[in-house]
Amino acid sequence: MLSDKPGVQDLVGVLAAKGLKYVVVSPGSRHAPISLSFHHHPQIELVVVPDERAAAYFALGIAQYTGVATAVLCTSGTAAANYGPAIAEAFYQQIPLIAITADRPEEWIDQGDGQTIRQKNLLTEHTLAAYHLPSETTHHDSHWYLRRSVNEAWEIANGARKGPVHLNVPLREPLYNIVEGAISAPATFSVIHGKKTLSKSQTESLQSAFSSYSKIMVLVGMGHHDEPTLAALRQLSALPQVLLLTETTANLHDENIIGCIDRLLMAVDQEQQLDMQPELLITLGDQIISKKIKSYLRQLKNLKHWHIGTDGKFSDTFQRLEFLIDADPYLVFSSLASLGGCGSYAIPFKSLHTEISQEQTTRLSTFPWCDLTVFGKILPALPSESILQMGNSSVVRYIQLFDSRRDITYYGNRGTSGIDGSTSTAAGMAHVANRITTLITGDIAFMYDINGLWHEHKNNNLKIIVVNNGGGGIFKIIDGPRSTNALELIFEAKHNSDVRQLAAHFNIDYFHASHEESLIEGLDWLYNNHGCKILEIDTADAENDVMLQAYFKELKNRNTQA
Amino acid sequence: MLSDKPGVQDLVGVLAAKGLKYVVVSPGSRHAPISLSFHHHPQIELVVVPDERAAAYFALGIAQYTGVATAVLCTSGTAAANYGPAIAEAFYQQIPLIAITADRPEEWIDQGDGQTIRQKNLLTEHTLAAYHLPSETTHHDSHWYLRRSVNEAWEIANGARKGPVHLNVPLREPLYNIVEGAISAPATFSVIHGKKTLSKSQTESLQSAFSSYSKIMVLVGMGHHDEPTLAALRQLSALPQVLLLTETTANLHDENIIGCIDRLLMAVDQEQQLDMQPELLITLGDQIISKKIKSYLRQLKNLKHWHIGTDGKFSDTFQRLEFLIDADPYLVFSSLASLGGCGSYAIPFKSLHTEISQEQTTRLSTFPWCDLTVFGKILPALPSESILQMGNSSVVRYIQLFDSRRDITYYGNRGTSGIDGSTSTAAGMAHVANRITTLITGDIAFMYDINGLWHEHKNNNLKIIVVNNGGGGIFKIIDGPRSTNALELIFEAKHNSDVRQLAAHFNIDYFHASHEESLIEGLDWLYNNHGCKILEIDTADAENDVMLQAYFKELKNRNTQA
Repeated sequence: MLSDKPGVQDLVGVLAAKGLKYVVVSPGSRHAPISLSFHHHPQIELVVVPDERAAAYFALGIAQYTGVATAVLCTSGTAAANYGPAIAEAFYQQIPLIAITADRPEEWIDQGDGQTIRQKNLLTEHTLAAYHLPSETTHHDSHWYLRRSVNEAWEIANGARKGPVHLNVPLREPLYNIVEGAISAPATFSVIHGKKTLSKSQTESLQSAFSSYSKIMVLVGMGHHDEPTLAALRQLSALPQVLLLTETTANLHDENIIGCIDRLLMAVDQEQQLDMQPELLITLGDQIISKKIKSYLRQLKNLKHWHIGTDGKFSDTFQRLEFLIDADPYLVFSSLASLGGCGSYAIPFKSLHTEISQEQTTRLSTFPWCDLTVFGKILPALPSESILQMGNSSVVRYIQLFDSRRDITYYGNRGTSGIDGSTSTAAGMAHVANRITTLITGDIAFMYDINGLWHEHKNNNLKIIVVNNGGGGIFKIIDGPRSTNALELIFEAKHNSDVRQLAAHFNIDYFHASHEESLIEGLDWLYNNHGCKILEIDTADAENDVMLQAYFKELKNRNTQA
Repeated sequence: MLSDKPGVQDLVGVLAAKGLKYVVVSPGSRHAPISLSFHHHPQIELVVVPDERAAAYFALGIAQYTGVATAVLCTSGTAAANYGPAIAEAFYQQIPLIAITADRPEEWIDQGDGQTIRQKNLLTEHTLAAYHLPSETTHHDSHWYLRRSVNEAWEIANGARKGPVHLNVPLREPLYNIVEGAISAPATFSVIHGKKTLSKSQTESLQSAFSSYSKIMVLVGMGHHDEPTLAALRQLSALPQVLLLTETTANLHDENIIGCIDRLLMAVDQEQQLDMQPELLITLGDQIISKKIKSYLRQLKNLKHWHIGTDGKFSDTFQRLEFLIDADPYLVFSSLASLGGCGSYAIPFKSLHTEISQEQTTRLSTFPWCDLTVFGKILPALPSESILQMGNSSVVRYIQLFDSRRDITYYGNRGTSGIDGSTSTAAGMAHVANRITTLITGDIAFMYDINGLWHEHKNNNLKIIVVNNGGGGIFKIIDGPRSTNALELIFEAKHNSDVRQLAAHFNIDYFHASHEESLIEGLDWLYNNHGCKILEIDTADAENDVMLQAYFKELKNRNTQA
């Protein structure tokens, strides 16, 4: 059974032939020919999430995990505008999303009809490509154009640089006519993406340049780096002239790799800061969360910067870009690692990192109940081989103060760093991951994306931890807002939120922890019981910002104390 | 006290000088120079609503009521994308909104920094104008350009055709530097909008054409029509050759004016439908909710259509446009009304309307508890001189089956007919209206815009009625979706929502009505107690769609029965 519209049959047929599995649809009427055809296709799972904003973030979670384009489908009107936030996130995080927006036929735009807005170019700023499909495909060329467009959209979304694409589909009434039979798989074309290699002379030239430096910093940001690349990076990190810094979102671990950038920078005194200055910076991956490392590197005068990536993206994050190396990172890093070690630039910082790591538990044991100590209890309690979705923005910053665990896969919506979709994204990932998926989120982000729980797909693997510090914690720990007399009014989102009632509303089991004992009990409850659950950790009355400052101060003073 | 940035001082200064009163701000950091300067300005009231999507709809409610541009202010990143839905609504409803989005300095776009997306053109599809302000105003010309742009933005938003404008404001760090002193009111220019008159020959030519028709239908849609225009329309409606139809959103009432279009059309038999065919259709205002009248008129072959309006908008809603009359509607309608009456075209329909109105209460008394009878109880209970905000989409359709009350002002977000902002809009209106403001909304729309209650501005005049029919009622009462076997899955947004818990979460008084007696008690409780309250009316178990069909059937058969 499928829609009688040939254009819709082709749209659904091409996407299914290319390998589409999940379609996240929000209720509506105009998309009926498409949603019904997907619904009856044996390969497609239709997931219904009512709020379009949440639906798009839900699909983002699926695509983030599977790495394959996921479709999100909505009706006409402001529905399409609600895809804006998640589309921007997908764009900067390079996640393949196919936004299919049903539209009224073009001739009815601006003629005073209901749910009819200007959809065609609504998402162009943050999509890799946008197509306005023809209303009629009676002419042979229109037919070819529609199929080619859908085909292209799939390939672009899943290409070397992945990302969101937009298919705007004008549909005429009647919408509900169905014909019997299955959708035939139409002929489609494919793109083969070869790994890009460097020529012998290019490699030698890079090796020669690399050998001329004795202070090299490698900084690995957010991304899904393949195993050979990770192995080459581990090998590289063993060289004494290489200081390899990374963040949780890179999921890269080794004894020589420093995962807590801010913590290290806080512990380095002024003399050491001078010694730390690299001559060469090599980066891989996307967004860097640590503001401290970005501002530290941006002010260095004689730094050269190489960025490795085959995604065709041009980012000069540190304003010192020398080479953008459009080649397989594994080939580049392994050829550099093979050059062998020299000097001792990185050794003191690696030792310092190890020392601070070892002291961390003892140091925190002197601190009272507060956000910082709470994170110290949560992170070891995460089940092995599970997934962690980190909310923005103080949550991800706290987590990065702790050594990341090799047996956990870390994710966070750092493509745009918005607070608007973390819950939906975690719900989408749990839907497909078949592994425990923990969301750690703040109270504000939890409230904001509350409709990320408004659907029938709350997976039993989804475990939600809300660190409720009474709102807007991030603005207490960055500098500017504290200096004004309007901190609470303008910068923090105040609320009298009761997470318990929201949990009850969505019929999700709930546990409240307000001190260390109940937190331990709560974590045990969360992970040793079946089903989606919410653990609220109440730190609203704690001196969270004061304790964080005290922690940084102690790090700074450890040399003096020692 | 104000920001030390001259560009921000000018932005705030120009807007205040033009008359800006309300700024709805969502928490964030990048907008600090602007929000702090507004905060310290004696003329400006800063309203904080955390969710940007809800914030923009909140501002829409303020501007909808005051008719004067209201500003909405957010930080950089996806925050700005969340303005999309309300901006589209404002565009089609012609409501003056000034979206001020703080941005990173232009040189940092796409360089991997946090909360940095492509904001400049994000809202262009549904704004009357979009300005990207200069980061620096040290050169005299930049200074002039910034002030001129803000000035222009205000005038365009408040112009003959009102609507949303976008000011994107890149801001460099440091953000929190404050200087003492008040903002001086900078020199600004103004636009004087004259009422557009017709020349003597133009008037005579229209009068002569009008006189040649004996069957004239006047259809008045959504809009804020001035009192002289309404008076002229009442005068016109008394002519026997004029059948004047209107909708609740026009707020136009008189004994000769027919406010329940669908109800009348259902009661007209086939022979009468032929008699009803107008030769000339004259329209005023925006979106028409009634699908029945649109499809009835669109299929007429020999119809001429005149649209009156000075807003410069070109809409050919009925595909028969002859004249778009860019003149003061009062002048047009009064000159036509002065021609006097002839014929008897409209008389039977006016009588029929009166008869059905008189029978309505008796007819409904035979119906059991269901959505239809619930609306019959709610509408008479609204306090005199109060405001009604109608949710989309079944709510507004039910309300239009009842004669509208002269002592109530009706509003509904029919510019785009989205379900995404009704609660926020009602909250914004209640904030400024100083009158009881009732929101009647469905359960799905209430869930969708739940963050419209997430702020500290729940006015005591705000009374919320949630008609909870268990989800997606609209798709049961329009034709297509019922014919599929996937009605519940794809078209209705299912939920196990408990409005009681959401009310408790937001600390709002709550009352549950599930039969006639408790409804009467609930309405009494709602209006005779101080404060913001939620009345949930539970019709989930009623046969709402069956009863509505039965009601229409009775209307159709009344001639046969009589």
